[in-house]
Amino acid sequence: MLKVAIVVGCLITSVVAHAKPVAIAIHGGAGTIEKANLSDEQEAQYKAKLEEAVMAGYRSLQEGASSIEAVVTSITILEASPLFNAGKGAVYTFDGQHELDASIMDGKTRNAGAVAAVKVLKSPIKAALAVMQHSVHVMLSGTGAETFAIAQGLEVVENHYFDTPFRLEALKKAKHKLKSDDAAWVSPDMTDYKFGTVGAVALDQQGNIAAGTSTGGMTAKQYGRIGDSPIIGAGTFADNQSCAVSATGHGEYFIRFNVAADICARVKYSNKPLNQAADEVINQVLKHAGGTGGIIAIDPQGNIAMPFNTSGMYRASVDTEGQVTVEIYK
Amino acid sequence: MLKVAIVVGCLITSVVAHAKPVAIAIHGGAGTIEKANLSDEQEAQYKAKLEEAVMAGYRSLQEGASSIEAVVTSITILEASPLFNAGKGAVYTFDGQHELDASIMDGKTRNAGAVAAVKVLKSPIKAALAVMQHSVHVMLSGTGAETFAIAQGLEVVENHYFDTPFRLEALKKAKHKLKSDDAAWVSPDMTDYKFGTVGAVALDQQGNIAAGTSTGGMTAKQYGRIGDSPIIGAGTFADNQSCAVSATGHGEYFIRFNVAADICARVKYSNKPLNQAADEVINQVLKHAGGTGGIIAIDPQGNIAMPFNTSGMYRASVDTEGQVTVEIYK
Repeated sequence: MLKVAIVVGCLITSVVAHAKPVAIAIHGGAGTIEKANLSDEQEAQYKAKLEEAVMAGYRSLQEGASSIEAVVTSITILEASPLFNAGKGAVYTFDGQHELDASIMDGKTRNAGAVAAVKVLKSPIKAALAVMQHSVHVMLSGTGAETFAIAQGLEVVENHYFDTPFRLEALKKAKHKLKSDDAAWVSPDMTDYKFGTVGAVALDQQGNIAAGTSTGGMTAKQYGRIGDSPIIGAGTFADNQSCAVSATGHGEYFIRFNVAADICARVKYSNKPLNQAADEVINQVLKHAGGTGGIIAIDPQGNIAMPFNTSGMYRASVDTEGQVTVEIYK
Repeated sequence: MLKVAIVVGCLITSVVAHAKPVAIAIHGGAGTIEKANLSDEQEAQYKAKLEEAVMAGYRSLQEGASSIEAVVTSITILEASPLFNAGKGAVYTFDGQHELDASIMDGKTRNAGAVAAVKVLKSPIKAALAVMQHSVHVMLSGTGAETFAIAQGLEVVENHYFDTPFRLEALKKAKHKLKSDDAAWVSPDMTDYKFGTVGAVALDQQGNIAAGTSTGGMTAKQYGRIGDSPIIGAGTFADNQSCAVSATGHGEYFIRFNVAADICARVKYSNKPLNQAADEVINQVLKHAGGTGGIIAIDPQGNIAMPFNTSGMYRASVDTEGQVTVEIYK
């Protein structure tokens, strides 16, 4: 809000030029995240990083950045942190590598970009943005996506840049479980490995909304598995006529139930409030089907919804009143 | 319909045991398909293959096959024909290879399977089915998808099995155009290369609907581009509560506008008749955005819609009354 005092003779008028309200929400993954499993120090680390990321996005919105830019700003910070399963902290594939996915969507133009299974791009969300802005395609995969992103000048790293001892340990545990029970890693126990996908949704001063998601996928994933994060409509969706959504959870369910787009469809066609639409899909449809996870969503009025059907979801938001929340547990 | 005459003394009762109605629709791609561009012989070839494929699916439904089985039966026939851009007649990538995509979805369970960028699997739709039925994932890509499918016993071919002189000529033309104008192949001229994606939707005797799609993608595609065909919600969608859809066209638009799922959302949440919902998305939303193509759709009552915003779409259907249509032009 910009307050300008204009002095005209003896008349003092306080002109309050309301900049249009902005708002933002981010997540760092949903799963079995319980107070008992996090030390005070870990909790403080997560909260500090979430706050840093959400405030960076929020400040950029205040300064006039587009919702797309704010989404990239916040996600880039989460990708650079080893705390989350995206960028630096990406989980390991079955073969001990890292394959990252990301997508982004602009609610104004319905333009979108996505990359799947990239191994050497430091910031997958920036690669998704480059695909959206500079290619005629929406979704690029593998070495082809890398070739394109490198030509666009994006930063390249060795695959082992994404290595972390914590995730390597998770791979070992997952492979041990796979040996004893092939279905183990999709059982509810899978949430032990936490789905640390990150994402952001934002509303800018022009009234445009956007969404983005970035992930390292599932621990021990095989067969070139593609989850929901790079799938427009499943893990990411944005439409100024309804809402913008970023998802995190058991990706296969999010694809089958077209989760991000279904929430927006309930807003658009059934005229449901955002929080009701989001709650129905996460806590009724998905829960009934056995799909665990959560989403963050925003609408053009700046309403924010952050439902999840797991015990926790790393999340933070700044609403149109400037109120900041940073939360982990239910 | 099974008619059984029962003779009880002098009383003759005609018991008509109505098997539940079945229906099916298929497409072989939409694009600049005009009478002037097809010889009578070519037209006859296309119509004969479409009729063969739709009747094979229909007969299987009459014999009690599931909608999923019928969809695979019809698509497999189209994949094996060089006439369509799927399986045998797949277009060439920029590098002179073939990368095929397919997906399938079961409207009863909302289960789904998809493969992207597979090069050595003879029938991509059968690979998508195997992913749906035998993996814990929805979407597998590249050599990983092939490894999985081969382990499932699916038929392997050399990549040049998919070679056809006609498509090689199209690649040469496309590359020539790309040289002179980098944007050419996504301009309206792109439709010169026809989008010969194939697909099927079906309603079975149990009242379940399903959809499937198979494609060779875009001529001269690069960078591991993934189109809408393997994307659940974009190129394929099925939900017993609304409809089943298979799409063909300029894939990037079909992803951005979540075309297959959006048609079903309009049926489900706005209570629109299938043909109205399908027409709105294809002839209003997509047309306004500049997205060319078409879809086939079926609902649990057996209503069929086949709108397209191009000059032609290879299509065929058998409705609940057993009426067969095989058409190409508008």
